[in-house]
Amino acid sequence: MNDNMHRKDFIKTAIAALATVPLFGGAARAQEADRPKDDASEPTHDMSQFPENWTRPDVIIMILYPGFTALDLIGPQYFFGSLMGAKVHLAAKTLEPVLTDTGVSIMPTIKFQDCPKSCDVLFVPGACQGMLDAIDDKETMDLIRSRGEAARYVTSVCTGSIILGAAGLLEGYKATSHWVTRPMLHHFGAVETDERVVIDRNRITAAGVSAGLDLGLHLTLKLRDEFYARTMQLLAEYAPAPPFDYGTPDRFKKEELDMIRGMFGGFVKKTDALGQKHAKEK
Amino acid sequence: MNDNMHRKDFIKTAIAALATVPLFGGAARAQEADRPKDDASEPTHDMSQFPENWTRPDVIIMILYPGFTALDLIGPQYFFGSLMGAKVHLAAKTLEPVLTDTGVSIMPTIKFQDCPKSCDVLFVPGACQGMLDAIDDKETMDLIRSRGEAARYVTSVCTGSIILGAAGLLEGYKATSHWVTRPMLHHFGAVETDERVVIDRNRITAAGVSAGLDLGLHLTLKLRDEFYARTMQLLAEYAPAPPFDYGTPDRFKKEELDMIRGMFGGFVKKTDALGQKHAKEK
Repeated sequence: MNDNMHRKDFIKTAIAALATVPLFGGAARAQEADRPKDDASEPTHDMSQFPENWTRPDVIIMILYPGFTALDLIGPQYFFGSLMGAKVHLAAKTLEPVLTDTGVSIMPTIKFQDCPKSCDVLFVPGACQGMLDAIDDKETMDLIRSRGEAARYVTSVCTGSIILGAAGLLEGYKATSHWVTRPMLHHFGAVETDERVVIDRNRITAAGVSAGLDLGLHLTLKLRDEFYARTMQLLAEYAPAPPFDYGTPDRFKKEELDMIRGMFGGFVKKTDALGQKHAKEK
Repeated sequence: MNDNMHRKDFIKTAIAALATVPLFGGAARAQEADRPKDDASEPTHDMSQFPENWTRPDVIIMILYPGFTALDLIGPQYFFGSLMGAKVHLAAKTLEPVLTDTGVSIMPTIKFQDCPKSCDVLFVPGACQGMLDAIDDKETMDLIRSRGEAARYVTSVCTGSIILGAAGLLEGYKATSHWVTRPMLHHFGAVETDERVVIDRNRITAAGVSAGLDLGLHLTLKLRDEFYARTMQLLAEYAPAPPFDYGTPDRFKKEELDMIRGMFGGFVKKTDALGQKHAKEK
């Protein structure tokens, strides 16, 4: 939709149409169990009332693996789950609940082996040790590599970009990661870039954990349009106001940063060693 | 800990101690199934190495009900799950997965009937129709009322404050809610306040959905200290950078807002009617 053309008429039609769709989320609510297409409980609103690009049947695959960070996933999933017409798959090795690294367990909706062969968006969340274990797991990496090679967008939050790198998907692309693992991206042929959300052609990587909300908005913009994305920002009331401003490493003293890095224990060394090994074997 | 006193010595000790605790999250990882206290897999690090207020055994009850918004819960849970020494309960009527309004299902860790009788933090997420259904459910409301009356902090994100109000927990308190339901808070005796996170004595309510991240930081500050909270902000890399600035209603034209409100369908009217009924019966 052209942003200025016929807006008033369009809005009149849209109000009537949207009144039947709670929160852009009617479509989302039908996704809970990857219902078959002929399920009578699929949303029945007349999608033809919307601009065509508002209801595109995008296929989105979000990867779940043991120990991933719940907020890495749920930030973008809030936005993906509100894309009318889209199908969001939460894919894991089995349909058992997946335990995240803050102690909450999330249900997959589909097994890797049943995943669609192609998708519009592949999304990989981050973790600490769980990220290294995922890279060691052939089935997980095979799925990420095969779907990533053909996806319209290949995306990650936090250390998820190290997984994309290990799958060979960031070779020659600008990318970011959690600040702790960002300096290791070059081992995987990626060009380390210090931005909140890094977009290089169809690779879209976000910084640590909370950057998933910004990624979600950027992707809504790409998959729908600016009005849709702005509306989603309002529905999420995303006007952040943290009580202080300590979200980046440059806000800390060196001794404090050393301490905080120390909290990651062997994780930093192990990830760096993995990267060096990857670089040598290339 | 005094912020300036002995910081250098303290940090030296803390680095050694923290090296054994991945991401403040060692404690969190032991919470997955509300393990009994004598479980051998509880974290074994020597908690006496930390400042006393870093490892307080806070009891946090987060309420899950059908149709709640996943991001309302997972934003604060990221921070709660990283409070060393704390126990985070995800409480629901049964231990079955709870389907949220964006299509992801989350596992409870404890049944309402098994919930601790008192807690440091009671937390209630928001929803649309699911919020109204929760208010209609006696068992859910009895739990929220009884735990809320005795909790050190009574907290919510988004329309969760309407649930707190309906439970009689906001009478005479300043509070906020999602921008769509904020004008209805007065029905419940609350003083509508247009701030991202509203703190009035021990009632802490946050605005819509994404405001849960800000709530999480405010509570980390109250339950631990400023250094702990700043460190959590860095671990979450919470330096938000949305692609545009449309997170509040004042950024939209009246006709656009009318359209967006229209998307909520009967929800706005139903919530207002509920509030009026509550006000009359008081």
